[in-house]
Amino acid sequence: MKLPGWLTGYRREWLPNDLIAALVVTMLLVPQGLAYATLAGLPAHLGLYASILPVIAYAIFGSSMVLAVGPVAITALMTASALTPLAAPGSPEYIAGAIVLALLSGLMLFVFGLLRLGQLARLLSHPVISGFISGAAILILIGQLRPLLGIHATGNTALELLWNLVPQLLEAEPLTAAIGLSALILLGLARRRLPQLLVRLGLAGTSATLLGRLAPMVVVLLAAAWVALAGLEARLDVVGALPAGLPQLVLPDLEWQWLGALWLPALIISLVTFVESVAIAQAFARKDGGRIDPDAELRGLGAANLASAFSGAFPVTGGFSRTVVNAEAGARSPLAGILAALLMVVVLLFATGLFRTLPNAVLAAVIMAAAVNLVDLKGLRHAWRFDPLEGVAFAGTALGVLVAGVETGVMFGVVFSLALLVWRASHPHLAVMGRVPGSEHFRNVLRHPEVEVDPAQVIVRVDENLFFGNAEEIETRLCAIVESHPEARHLILVMSSVSQVDATAADMLEYLNATLAQRDIRLHLAEVKGPVMDRLQAGTLLGHISGEVFLSTHEAVARLGSTET
Amino acid sequence: MKLPGWLTGYRREWLPNDLIAALVVTMLLVPQGLAYATLAGLPAHLGLYASILPVIAYAIFGSSMVLAVGPVAITALMTASALTPLAAPGSPEYIAGAIVLALLSGLMLFVFGLLRLGQLARLLSHPVISGFISGAAILILIGQLRPLLGIHATGNTALELLWNLVPQLLEAEPLTAAIGLSALILLGLARRRLPQLLVRLGLAGTSATLLGRLAPMVVVLLAAAWVALAGLEARLDVVGALPAGLPQLVLPDLEWQWLGALWLPALIISLVTFVESVAIAQAFARKDGGRIDPDAELRGLGAANLASAFSGAFPVTGGFSRTVVNAEAGARSPLAGILAALLMVVVLLFATGLFRTLPNAVLAAVIMAAAVNLVDLKGLRHAWRFDPLEGVAFAGTALGVLVAGVETGVMFGVVFSLALLVWRASHPHLAVMGRVPGSEHFRNVLRHPEVEVDPAQVIVRVDENLFFGNAEEIETRLCAIVESHPEARHLILVMSSVSQVDATAADMLEYLNATLAQRDIRLHLAEVKGPVMDRLQAGTLLGHISGEVFLSTHEAVARLGSTET
Repeated sequence: MKLPGWLTGYRREWLPNDLIAALVVTMLLVPQGLAYATLAGLPAHLGLYASILPVIAYAIFGSSMVLAVGPVAITALMTASALTPLAAPGSPEYIAGAIVLALLSGLMLFVFGLLRLGQLARLLSHPVISGFISGAAILILIGQLRPLLGIHATGNTALELLWNLVPQLLEAEPLTAAIGLSALILLGLARRRLPQLLVRLGLAGTSATLLGRLAPMVVVLLAAAWVALAGLEARLDVVGALPAGLPQLVLPDLEWQWLGALWLPALIISLVTFVESVAIAQAFARKDGGRIDPDAELRGLGAANLASAFSGAFPVTGGFSRTVVNAEAGARSPLAGILAALLMVVVLLFATGLFRTLPNAVLAAVIMAAAVNLVDLKGLRHAWRFDPLEGVAFAGTALGVLVAGVETGVMFGVVFSLALLVWRASHPHLAVMGRVPGSEHFRNVLRHPEVEVDPAQVIVRVDENLFFGNAEEIETRLCAIVESHPEARHLILVMSSVSQVDATAADMLEYLNATLAQRDIRLHLAEVKGPVMDRLQAGTLLGHISGEVFLSTHEAVARLGSTET
Repeated sequence: MKLPGWLTGYRREWLPNDLIAALVVTMLLVPQGLAYATLAGLPAHLGLYASILPVIAYAIFGSSMVLAVGPVAITALMTASALTPLAAPGSPEYIAGAIVLALLSGLMLFVFGLLRLGQLARLLSHPVISGFISGAAILILIGQLRPLLGIHATGNTALELLWNLVPQLLEAEPLTAAIGLSALILLGLARRRLPQLLVRLGLAGTSATLLGRLAPMVVVLLAAAWVALAGLEARLDVVGALPAGLPQLVLPDLEWQWLGALWLPALIISLVTFVESVAIAQAFARKDGGRIDPDAELRGLGAANLASAFSGAFPVTGGFSRTVVNAEAGARSPLAGILAALLMVVVLLFATGLFRTLPNAVLAAVIMAAAVNLVDLKGLRHAWRFDPLEGVAFAGTALGVLVAGVETGVMFGVVFSLALLVWRASHPHLAVMGRVPGSEHFRNVLRHPEVEVDPAQVIVRVDENLFFGNAEEIETRLCAIVESHPEARHLILVMSSVSQVDATAADMLEYLNATLAQRDIRLHLAEVKGPVMDRLQAGTLLGHISGEVFLSTHEAVARLGSTET
């Protein structure tokens, strides 16, 4: 196997930067790992297991220098959503299902990478991605109110959950709620105020920001220590004893029943995993002029998920907040990730005891503090302003996630944005053209009344690709145009804006040709682009067309005018 | 309510034509109605019930002069496919479900018509429609082997059914199989040979064709008479006593449980119903220069299905074979349909006894003889030749129907053709341009090496709409082009072929602008179409762009060249 480029070209002076980044990322990764594992309905320590081998696997196969791979909120939510119908959260079957999910996603991602299917991600537009993430984040926020406040409510969708949850808000466990809300407020303050405070105390801007990022770890350790010292352990829902030591490698147990139930969730998790990671990796690569190879990303994420499965954990992907921290801390290469994985080994060997008395309410606060930043209201406004239909795609995807769940939500988003694409292209602009006097140029007669028009020749430019979505409308409108020109003997279609013609549109052109022939009008094409001509030559239209194919509109007009006289 | 145009403008001389057409259509409609009801898993007489009020409702609300509405093979199959998981075929619950399906489809179609959503049908390309119909027809052929040969095999998909059926072929009931196969052969001969034979016997071509169309009725009556005379009734599976008299109007019983299970099948049936009918109606309207109003079609088909529900029957749509017969027999107006409905009333009042001894194997033969014509191998070849990917859409939809069922098949087809659309537009042609010496024209430097190029100005024309499917690729390729021009100071994007820009592409242009700015290269736009400019003005790009927006490429080159010096 070829060594990754970053390793063979590694410079010794990068090491201090990578080491600092690894330290800071680990401090964030420990609380987030514990929290996202519980969000996925799994024992907390699996979040730490998912942060070792997957990181190393990504460093070997991925292409981003700074992407921090591991458990993240959205895929944890999707894991829970896929497994909850099949087994009780935390049960051995549930854990086995999570492993299968990681295995299937990993295989799919890796195989897609080998098949160079990185372009699959193109099915998701920006508003759909942002809408999906926002909806999932709101779903997380609503769901985490339960551990945060110590209430028990169930529901298959966000609305149902909210409906069951709201009446119970007043029945929250006071101690749990007090600790949870305090942690949430502390985390909120730390994110918004701490960096400025530290700068005012004399720290450099970057160091202040980085110290601010350590707030989750500080809050988690303080809470665990306080619960232990105050002896509140029995009165609270706490993480409990984590097994010390490294994950044992497991061979996932693939049963047909799992495969049937989990292939679709795994596929959707793969798609979301990939799209999210590539978006993050690309944003950071743009900053320093680097480039992301989508197919290498597929392989990297695939390897990471396979590694997570063999660690007995759950699906992982690139996380935004940890990637930001990694880049801010100056990471130069994936070695930062590998060092973070080694630090995680140290945590697992020596420090798991620190988290035994950590209240789950504090983990809920960690999740919510991160999730609230994923709700992208600015993005919604941005999409809406650009085009209200894009705003609808955004809001519809988010609502789909809330009303019908993460999988249905993302599928709705994909189908909606594809349908929008068809819709947009289905009302093309058609321009009736005339010749600019004394020239070989042709212009829209509506905008240029001075152009010359031969009543026997109707010249129409179609400003859109011809495909199944607009074929019928174009036929109808062309017939109407011809009918409004009673002296017409020739219809010249100017194809300069047509880059694609599909089979449905080619059929339409044949019908049009036949319809026009009945009225003694000949159909001609002009300025046909090369690829379009290739298609038409493969079809049957050119064998039946009543008129000719001209290189330019001018040539068509000149030739048809002279045959007429 | 306004009277339909064909009624207020009816001419007395049309009446004989309409009456002859009504007679011929009824002779075809009786056996097909009985057959398609059994295909739908319903009592045979419901097929006759579905041929009275729906036809009248369509005549009032529809827009086609010749479309023959009633039970057809594909929707009968879809009805069976939707209801079989929910109730035993023929049971009261099953019949109630069929009524609900007709009611829901009718409501959906009618409401879509009122909302002018006729364009929904554009989601289906020709290869997908043909692939769907071909796959469904093969499914019908395989399924009808059971009643034709008197074997009992089950299976949820075509493959499963075939797997269970083939080993039993030798265990067919000899008498059933003999009658079924004889009927099938007779029908095949009648369709292919009878018209020529009749012409040779001195008949006019049209009359011969029309008489050939009566073959199903003749075969059905002969078989029923023979079984009655030979006293074979007890040894065969026969239609049995049909209730004489007209359908009683029913008020469909809408339960929530039905709604939840049937809304999606009803939606898909509506879509297929509509697409099939419009395709048929349009083909015939084209012949005589008439036009079809898709929204009126939606209302007409909606009214027909509502009428079918109130008749206690099942979903109906426009049928190809009966429409052909109707047109061939010279139908001038929907009065032909109304007269056919009245003739059906006569059949129900006086002639149901004729079909008591009709073997179901003969109905299976009627279905198969019709279905075999729906398998469109020529269409597959046509699509494949035009573009192998369109062939894949055709074959994939057909296979989807066979492997996963009609609903999944049609959804696969829709998603595949939409994905294909994205795929095709996702590798756009980009042309680096230079100026034709001494002119204001710009041409591709690869095809016109003589053009003048200013090394500081890179001019690129993008030959495709900018949208989420190609935004990333275009960004990557533009960056690569700029990198290969080390002296570049300006990138001029020529937007003459761009008719649409979506939010994802607008974001991409912003990233590109920022990336180029880091390298001290300014981004300019030229020849931006009006609608594209409107979008960009609604977005944020024009506030950040490092360069300018020029009306023409020539203006951009002239202005940027002069500022440079």
